[in-house]
Order: sequence, then structure tokens, then C-alpha cells
Amino acid sequence: MTVNIAVAGASGYAGGELLRLLLTHPEVEIGALTAASSAGTKLGVHQPHLVPLADRVLAETTPETLAGHDVVFLALPHGHSAAIAAQLGPDVLVVDLGADHRLADAGDWQRWYGGDHAGQWPYGLPELPGAREKLAGTKRIAVPGCFPTGGSLALAPAFAAGLIEPDVTIVAVTGTSGAGKSLKPNLLGSEVMGSASAYGVGGAHRHTPEFAQNLSAVAGEKVTVSFTPVLAPMPRGILTTASAPLKDGVDEAAARAAYEKAYDAEPFVQLLPAGAWPTTSATLGSNNTQLQVTVDVDARRLVVVAAIDNLTKGTAGGAVQSMNLALGLPETTGLSTVGVAP
Amino acid sequence: MTVNIAVAGASGYAGGELLRLLLTHPEVEIGALTAASSAGTKLGVHQPHLVPLADRVLAETTPETLAGHDVVFLALPHGHSAAIAAQLGPDVLVVDLGADHRLADAGDWQRWYGGDHAGQWPYGLPELPGAREKLAGTKRIAVPGCFPTGGSLALAPAFAAGLIEPDVTIVAVTGTSGAGKSLKPNLLGSEVMGSASAYGVGGAHRHTPEFAQNLSAVAGEKVTVSFTPVLAPMPRGILTTASAPLKDGVDEAAARAAYEKAYDAEPFVQLLPAGAWPTTSATLGSNNTQLQVTVDVDARRLVVVAAIDNLTKGTAGGAVQSMNLALGLPETTGLSTVGVAP
Amino acid sequence: MTVNIAVAGASGYAGGELLRLLLTHPEVEIGALTAASSAGTKLGVHQPHLVPLADRVLAETTPETLAGHDVVFLALPHGHSAAIAAQLGPDVLVVDLGADHRLADAGDWQRWYGGDHAGQWPYGLPELPGAREKLAGTKRIAVPGCFPTGGSLALAPAFAAGLIEPDVTIVAVTGTSGAGKSLKPNLLGSEVMGSASAYGVGGAHRHTPEFAQNLSAVAGEKVTVSFTPVLAPMPRGILTTASAPLKDGVDEAAARAAYEKAYDAEPFVQLLPAGAWPTTSATLGSNNTQLQVTVDVDARRLVVVAAIDNLTKGTAGGAVQSMNLALGLPETTGLSTVGVAP
Amino acid sequence: MTVNIAVAGASGYAGGELLRLLLTHPEVEIGALTAASSAGTKLGVHQPHLVPLADRVLAETTPETLAGHDVVFLALPHGHSAAIAAQLGPDVLVVDLGADHRLADAGDWQRWYGGDHAGQWPYGLPELPGAREKLAGTKRIAVPGCFPTGGSLALAPAFAAGLIEPDVTIVAVTGTSGAGKSLKPNLLGSEVMGSASAYGVGGAHRHTPEFAQNLSAVAGEKVTVSFTPVLAPMPRGILTTASAPLKDGVDEAAARAAYEKAYDAEPFVQLLPAGAWPTTSATLGSNNTQLQVTVDVDARRLVVVAAIDNLTKGTAGGAVQSMNLALGLPETTGLSTVGVAP
Repeated sequence: MTVNIAVAGASGYAGGELLRLLLTHPEVEIGALTAASSAGTKLGVHQPHLVPLADRVLAETTPETLAGHDVVFLALPHGHSAAIAAQLGPDVLVVDLGADHRLADAGDWQRWYGGDHAGQWPYGLPELPGAREKLAGTKRIAVPGCFPTGGSLALAPAFAAGLIEPDVTIVAVTGTSGAGKSLKPNLLGSEVMGSASAYGVGGAHRHTPEFAQNLSAVAGEKVTVSFTPVLAPMPRGILTTASAPLKDGVDEAAARAAYEKAYDAEPFVQLLPAGAWPTTSATLGSNNTQLQVTVDVDARRLVVVAAIDNLTKGTAGGAVQSMNLALGLPETTGLSTVGVAP
Repeated sequence: MTVNIAVAGASGYAGGELLRLLLTHPEVEIGALTAASSAGTKLGVHQPHLVPLADRVLAETTPETLAGHDVVFLALPHGHSAAIAAQLGPDVLVVDLGADHRLADAGDWQRWYGGDHAGQWPYGLPELPGAREKLAGTKRIAVPGCFPTGGSLALAPAFAAGLIEPDVTIVAVTGTSGAGKSLKPNLLGSEVMGSASAYGVGGAHRHTPEFAQNLSAVAGEKVTVSFTPVLAPMPRGILTTASAPLKDGVDEAAARAAYEKAYDAEPFVQLLPAGAWPTTSATLGSNNTQLQVTVDVDARRLVVVAAIDNLTKGTAGGAVQSMNLALGLPETTGLSTVGVAP
Repeated sequence: MTVNIAVAGASGYAGGELLRLLLTHPEVEIGALTAASSAGTKLGVHQPHLVPLADRVLAETTPETLAGHDVVFLALPHGHSAAIAAQLGPDVLVVDLGADHRLADAGDWQRWYGGDHAGQWPYGLPELPGAREKLAGTKRIAVPGCFPTGGSLALAPAFAAGLIEPDVTIVAVTGTSGAGKSLKPNLLGSEVMGSASAYGVGGAHRHTPEFAQNLSAVAGEKVTVSFTPVLAPMPRGILTTASAPLKDGVDEAAARAAYEKAYDAEPFVQLLPAGAWPTTSATLGSNNTQLQVTVDVDARRLVVVAAIDNLTKGTAGGAVQSMNLALGLPETTGLSTVGVAP
Repeated sequence: MTVNIAVAGASGYAGGELLRLLLTHPEVEIGALTAASSAGTKLGVHQPHLVPLADRVLAETTPETLAGHDVVFLALPHGHSAAIAAQLGPDVLVVDLGADHRLADAGDWQRWYGGDHAGQWPYGLPELPGAREKLAGTKRIAVPGCFPTGGSLALAPAFAAGLIEPDVTIVAVTGTSGAGKSLKPNLLGSEVMGSASAYGVGGAHRHTPEFAQNLSAVAGEKVTVSFTPVLAPMPRGILTTASAPLKDGVDEAAARAAYEKAYDAEPFVQLLPAGAWPTTSATLGSNNTQLQVTVDVDARRLVVVAAIDNLTKGTAGGAVQSMNLALGLPETTGLSTVGVAP
């Protein structure tokens, strides 16, 4: 099988990571690359690391330039995917890396993003219960947000096994590429190097309802999420620290057993040996998730730490993994667990 | 007044920061500088930034080399201060930057550090209720751990005002200097740059009982603390994210009022204007604490973010501030709120 | 003496560093702070580290807002100082941190910056031969570029002592703050972290004629400079590696003697002990220059390495040092050789 | 073809990078992994990013553990390869990533490394004139040093085309992984982050004779090299700035033509479009070299900037590329020009 793909938003970080992965995907042929303000320029100007594509000229992002491909990836700002997607045929596999089709609840969409709700598509986090069934053969995929990827992988097994109360605290330390190429003063190298800062504190970050949606579905009850993202001086990576009160009688052995059960067969989630803790650098450029779980016996909380590359497993790698499922390819095709370290 | 000071552990990071501050302290004269394995070498080899002291030769750390000073700072590994301190006269002001004299409870000491408990000294975090009274005129000061400095400043006002339940979650992102100059593989630049990692997870970090001791005293009841430190690729700085369930009826206005009341007169705690969030770089090299508080109405939690420089307010600056109080000097002498940024 | 100062361009990095230094200058009172697009906003928004000035509102940069001060610092983009300066009275000390008044030659100005040449002012690098005489009592100061500060200090003694041929190679590794707060994609944290890149290669950087002007004056003959700046992932600091062919008979001892002679009495240039090499972090936030010189006997070249903080000695510190000379204050007033490390 | 390989020094950075590349090499089967002090531990402890090999136990590095493989990679400290290599059979392809077999001249070896000279092996920089012929079918390969890789690629075409005088200045900015996992204070994250520093200045770095050997061979005359390495705060990457006096009559067009001729057919050297400059991040994890050349008409020098990943093209990638040639495989097998950015 050779599928012809197009990438809308090829000049951005998510688009660049997609292309990096697709360049080594054995079943993929790279078709149209499109952009907004960068249309007409060469990809090499924006993505100097994508050497084989350096001379490709970016087209404008329109339904016409994206037409005629088997798969279209939309790596666009939130709110821009729905209109484009609506004009792509039902036989095209559309993979939306934006938020437009993640949330089930129209009220949530309205509150957190504003405007009309575009509806929900099958959710591209195959490790969640029931997700693979919905992704198999689908023509529409909503790729998760990078933070909900880490946080949902961190806590889903605990809810599935009934280990914790539905009152979750998540602090996620992220690299700067999660913010994209936005030209904002606080994203300048001079500002971010040597500094850590929190943002979207107190339930203000748009990924909050996505965490709650994912975890509530697994828990079978409403899960409350206190989420704080922290910007750290690194280009990539998310280190998620998630915790919740333990249910009575749960101990370290039960916790570990639940995570082993959940992840032993997963190709892209690695429960580390007891005593080892995740580092984001070990996942850099890979689709791997490093994870460790423990029990704080004094505080009576389960604590889970998970490391991912926000651009790979957290965005483009998750998108390719889900595409593979949708196309009926082996799920790991074109993806790797091997990070680039140090 | 001119006080003659000695610094034991002058070749390390805490000792170096102390000397940086003391070099501009108008009432201080720098006497003996001592070290362990570096004794006999020049300070400039270890602290090339302390230009005026570059040719000072390090003496060995012994009661004799430290004798004859008005103030002795002990910047030694945990467990090494008590024996030395016991041999310094009762008229000498001894400021212990290690953990030896922080904990009140001998059982806590035994559990977290091992060995005999050296007893508790007045605690060098003047912003805590009652602390200044104990520090005034004292001859013994226990300088807080860097993490408990940030976390205690973050949550003490909430407990003092009865805003939160005694069940606290703290995730603190720290620069690498907090680990000192230990030659461990995971502290190599190649390992830490571009990576975030957690350690001491699940209640295993030695600062855990210190948090609990501080906050329980303010709360008037036992406070449970789930603490996770995260190592980030920056030399300095701690960004603390602390949260706890709100008591009934507490809203944003009440929270803000409590923090304004607690900190409006504090010289080294800056409650930021609403909507602004702390950055560790803004506190770099200063004794300032930047702090913001908010209420997550969905998760019903108070969330506080605090930024300090772990070596300044978190260690050496706090030590000087407390020394000033012990000596009857204006508390801010030789200290600044102005950071070095970007 | 208390001098009232104004800073035009207070929201930028150079302006911020000036204010950081002036806040501890004992003879200075901080008056008007002005900006362009940020006029009307509070300084704390742009410079959160300057806590004592957080509530100061930025005025617009005009001759009127700057009037009535003893000293006016112009930290403006190149080409913007001359027009403003022309409207400030002859009794006001005007310190231009931009390039407008650095070059003697109108043709050089025209070639490298374009537009009318504003003339040359006394040059604010006191360590150069004859510079202090011109700065004493002057009412106009041209602060050097950050790269020429490092490179001129690195090589002036060698030319003064006749050690080298007038054919110089300089590669200077710089932190990102040298580029200011410009919102350019290549200055985003995601781009600069983990990466080194050269720019202005092949004689294209505007500081090239300033190097040549300084070194030619010392050498008494035309000095050719091949200059390459390299952007490195750090907020501050310039590490200059400068080399030139040795004249016959020059050896290590002669080289060292020339540098000792030149710098032994200089308060802000530190020739390191033989075998020690400069690190930019040791100069962070200080007005110090760390310098080392050696002779490559195989390549028959003199090699000098110099470290400065580009914002301090390279910009704002040099400006204050020169202001002190112009005002008849001790040259070191308000300045320090002590860096903030690690 | 499936070749069975062993890696001696698998716990270090060079060994780790080799394994990262070999894991995706289609003709390779990974056999024995050996180490010195880490023998007996699992690879996952040292290389957490090499997930598929996490449970492999490290053997001790001996001729016996390395026996029975088609290819043996020696990623050992300098001076340790020769003795081991002598005990491996003549039919085994031995690839030495250390310095032991790089230098032709016994006197050079004696001066720069000390001890007995082990002799010279075919040099693993296929882009140098004549190198491929020597590598084809060889059973012994000396992998170049990381700095000489960058510097030789930067200047070889200029010497081949007679553009420059044999008097070269090279300043190379390197990431910290080039120093390996050595536990030295100056390599701690706290020291390297936020700082640039030079070392081995004045012709003292051991790579100096290797540069000279390579370039002299191309030039057909003795080339003098002034080399200065600069440590920058990044884990990987070398940015080489190399320059030399132009011969009469050489202009930009001639320079560009020479580099196009040299590199247009090279799979792992990318001459960038005019006006674009290399960034090390664009080569991260790839075997690509980004290169740009220009002429400084005022200084009459050719200036070349080259970016590589020190661990990939500069060490392990170059080793695999050379192994491919020795085995008669397509040279690019298992290697990529696509970097991991941002």
C-alpha cells in the first residue's frame, strides 16, 4: 500500500514533525505541503532539518490544494480545521492535529474555544480503552492535545482499576515547541532560557476539559482535574506529574500490577523498572512514553510521572499511530521507541 | 557594626552564593574560608565569579579555623554541621545551611536523615508566623531547605486564613544547582540540558517532613504534603506549584485578600498583580519571592505559584536575612529584590 | 552628588540592564523612563525583575519627556538616537547605547548603517589608550557595541605592544539578548535552545568597522578584521576568541607581560592566572572582563579569549562606567566585578 | 546480508549513538555489548532512550566477549583500542572510534597522546579525496575525531581547488557530549548551562594534528592550523567556523563553484542555498553536514561555516557510513539526512 498524504500547516512545528516521521514511513508518499503566510516559499527556509524536502514549494492551504490525497493532515491553529475538513471528501482520511474535533460537549467547546462546535471525531489516543475500535477504518481522527496525551496515559490505568478518587492534580512541565512558532515576547530564547514559569493556572488552560473527558470516560464518573502547565527551558518534552487520593486498601503492589496490566502489551508505553524515573530526553524524537507509578503512603496518594515528546507521541507521532490504525496498517509502522539522547 | 564572618564549605554552590552576597553587605568583613577536599587551593579555582576573593586560600574545615569569628556559616553536607557547631562557642552566631537543625522531631530526623538528632534551632524563614521573634538575637539559625522555602511561602497565608484543607500537593521545578557540585552522571550538562525529570517521588524526598512541619504549625493541625521535585534544565530557580482543596465558601477575592494581608509588608515576597505569573528568571540572584494565587472554581482548589532563586532566597539570601535579624541589623541589609534578567 | 537620570528605551534589554545597575548606584536618582510602543504601560510588565520600579509608567520617548535630567541614556534602535540627541541641551550628559555616534568615518556609517552620519562622540571603552581623557567631563558618550567591547579588550594590548600583525580573526559566541527583544522566528526559544548558528558571516556584521576603527587606532596602522558572530543557547555572555599572526620573536612570556602591563591596574579587566580560561558565566551580571592570552607556537599566532556579559560590560555597565568618568565620579561607582554563578 | 556487530563501550555517549543508529540499520544484528566499570548492569540504566535494548546486560570488554562478530566497534577512551584490536582476527571488521589509529606520524602520536604508536588505519571520512578507495573492503577503520570531521569538510574543497593559503584558523563551538560522560566539575549542568568557555586553546587540543594531517594531504603542502574549541550549553552539535587567506583572484563565485563541485554528489554534505547559514539543530541526530561558504572581500579571507551533530556525523554516523563502504553496502544504508528539530 502506498498512501498519498498532504500536510496543511507544513511550516509549523507540528507539521514539521509530521513530515520528519512520514519521510521514513514505508507506506507513505508525501504530496502537497501547504501553509498560510508562508505559501510560495520553500520548505527548507522553515524546516532546514527536512533536507529531502528542502526545495518543495509551499502551496496555500485550500480545499483545492489538499484535494486528491488519500490522507490529509491538518496542523492548523485551533478553530481553522473544521471549515477545511468539511470540504474534504468522505473518502479522504482527515487527521486533525488541532482541537476542533476533540471535545464531545458543545458547551465545553463554546466555553473553552468559542464559536460553533464542529462535533467529535474518533480520538487518536489508541491506548485509551475502546479507542482502537473507533480508530479502525475511520476517515476522521481528532489527535489529542499534547498535555492530555501525557496526563491520560498517566492516570487511565488507575481509574480503570479503581485505584483512585476522581479528584486529580496534574502539573506538566513542557518544552517551548508546544506553543508553536508564535512570535510572542515570552517565547523568545532570552526569556525562556534559565527560567521556569507557569501559565493557564487555576483551570484556565484549554486542555483541562480534554483531560476530564478522557479520564471521566475511563472512571465511569465525573473526574475533576486541577491542571497546571509549566514552561521549562527545553525545546521539546512533557514531564507530567499526576496524583490523586488513593482508594482504601490500595498499595504499591496493586498500583504496579494495574499499570503492568494496562501497558505490558502497549508498543508505545514503557513502564520503567521499579526505582527508575522517566526523563523527557529519553523520549526525544520517539513515539515512546516513559512512565513510573508509586504510592505515597504518608499522603495516601497515587503519584505517576510520565515523559513524552510533545511533538512526537504528543502530536505528530500520535497522529501517525492513529493513521496506521485507520488505514489497517500495523500500528507501529514508521514509528520508533528509540529516543535521541543525550 | 562590623561583623567578622567565616564560611565553611566555601567551594560549593551555597558557600559561593553566600560570599557573593556578603561581598556587598555593608556590615560584614569576610574572614576564614574553609573546605574539605579543596583545602589548600585558591577560591578562584572553584568560584571564578568571586573576583575580589580569587586569591584567598581555602583552609580546612575545623573548629580551629572557624574560631574567632562573630558569625560562622556552615554550608556543609547534611549531617556534618552538628559536630562542628557543638565546638563553636555560645557567643558565636552559627548559621547552619544544612538540614541538621531544621526538624523538631527526633523521629523525623531518624527516618529521613538517619543518625542522632542534633535538636532544632530557630528557623530562618522570617516570613512564617512567629519566626522573627525567635530569630531576633539568637545565636543559632537553621536555614530552611530550598523547596520548603518556596512551598511554605506559597501556602502559609492560606492556612493562616483558613482557606484550605490540610491536604497539599506540591510540584516544584528546580534548577540543577540545588543538587550542589556532586559529580553524578545525571547532573552532567549532557544529561540535564533538554530534559526534565522527577526524583524523590511519592514522598521520598527529605524535604517532605520540613514542609509538613512548617505548614502544620501555621494550620494548627496536621498537614499532609504530597511533594514532587522536578529537575529542569536551568542552573538556578525553583518554581513551586502548590494546591489544596478549598474550604467551603472561599473565593478568589478571599484568597487574594489573605495573601495581600500576609505579604504586603514583606520586603522579600511580592504578590504579583492579578493576571501576572511568576518567572524564576525575574528572581535570579535576588532575595525576592514572586507569588501569585488563584482559585480553580471547577476543581475547587486553591492554586499558588511561587518563584525563588534556590541559591538566594532559598539558601544563602535567606541565611543573610536571618543573620541580619539575629544581629539586630535592618532585615534587608545587603539584600536585593532586583533580579538579573534576561 | 545626586544625578537625575532618564532612560529612553526602558522596556528593552539594554534599558532594563541599565536600570538594574542604576538602582544600586549611590549617586543616581531614576527619573523618566520612556518607550515607543510600550508607552503607557507599567515597567513591571516588561521588566518583572526590576521590582522597585514595577509600578513606574512608561512615557513616550520624546525630547520633552527626556528634558530636565542631568543624564539621558538612549537605549534605542540604531539610527534613532541622533535625532533625539540633537534636541537635548548641551549641558545634559547624553549616553548613546546605539551605534549612531560610534564611527568616525561618514563613509563607514553610510556603508554599514545607511543615512546621514551623526558624527562621532567620545567612545565609552575607558580601557582603550586615550579613552579616559576624552570621557572626563564630556557631555556626549558613544557606548561601544558589545562585540567590539570584547574584541577590542582582547587585542588592544597586543597591538599596543607590537606583538601581532594587523590581520585579525575574531569569532565571538554570544547569548541571545544581544539581539534584543526582536520578535524574529530564529530568536524563539525553540529555535535557539540546543543550537549554535553563525550570522553576519564574511564581514557582513555591522560591528566589523568598529573593531577595525578601535584596533587600527591602537596599532597605528590599518588593521583588517575577519569577524564571525555565533549565536549560542544562553541568554547572556560573549566569549571572544581572537587571534592574529605573531611578529617575529614574540613568545608567551612577552605576550603575558604585555597583557599584565595593560590590565594590572584596570578595575574591570581580569587577566586570569596562567592555565585558567574565561567562562562567560563567571562574568554574568558583572562589569568584569575575564581574559587569557597564549601563544600557539606551531601556528605562530597569538590567541586571546575574553569573556564579558554582553548586557553589562558590553552595554549598560560600560555605559555607567563611562558616565562615572564623565561626571567625575570614581570610575567603579555602582559597578561590580562579582558575577552571578552558577 | 546480515552482519553481526559488537559494541565495546556501549554505556558511553558514542556507544549509545552507535546503537541508536544500528537499531534501524537493515543489515545489522546487534550482538555483544560491553563496558568497563558498568559490566554486569543493564543497558537501560545507562541508555534509557534505547528502549529495545533496555534489558541487555553489559559484558566486560575483553577479546573473548568481542569475538565471533563480523564487525566490532570500539568506543573506548583514547589509548585503549590498540591492545584490544590487536587481539581481534584479521577477518573481523574493526571500527575504532577512538584516536589510536588516526595519525600517520608516530611522532605526532607520541607528542599528543603519548605511548606507542599503533599505526594508521584507513580514515573514516569518505568525503575526503581518496578516502572511499581505502575504505572499500577494508577490515580496519579509524573514525575521525568530531572536530576534524567538521573542519576537514569545511576546508578540503578550498584546498583541493587552490583557493586559500595554508594558514587556517578554526573555532569550533561544541555541545557537551563531545566530552563523554566524564564526571568533571566543569561538565556539570550547573556549570555549562548559561555559559560559553574555550579550552585547549593555543594549539593544545589533541585534534590539532588531525586537522593538519587531513588538510595538508588535500593541499599537497603543510597546512598550519590554529584551532580553538568552545564549549557551549547544548548537548550535541558542532558549529565550525573556518577561515584562511584567499589566494589572489579568488572571488565568491569561484569559492561557491568549488564547493558545489565537491559536494553536489555527496549524500551527507549539504551546501546551503546562498544566504542561508547552518544551524546545528537542523543536523541533530542526522548524518548530515550543513555548510555555507563566503568570501570576506575586506579581510581577503574565505570563511566557511559547517554544522554537524558531533555524535552522529562526527562519531557514530561517520562510523556506520564507513562500515557500509567497508562491507560493500550502499553508503547511506541506515543513515539519514533528516534532523530532529526544533
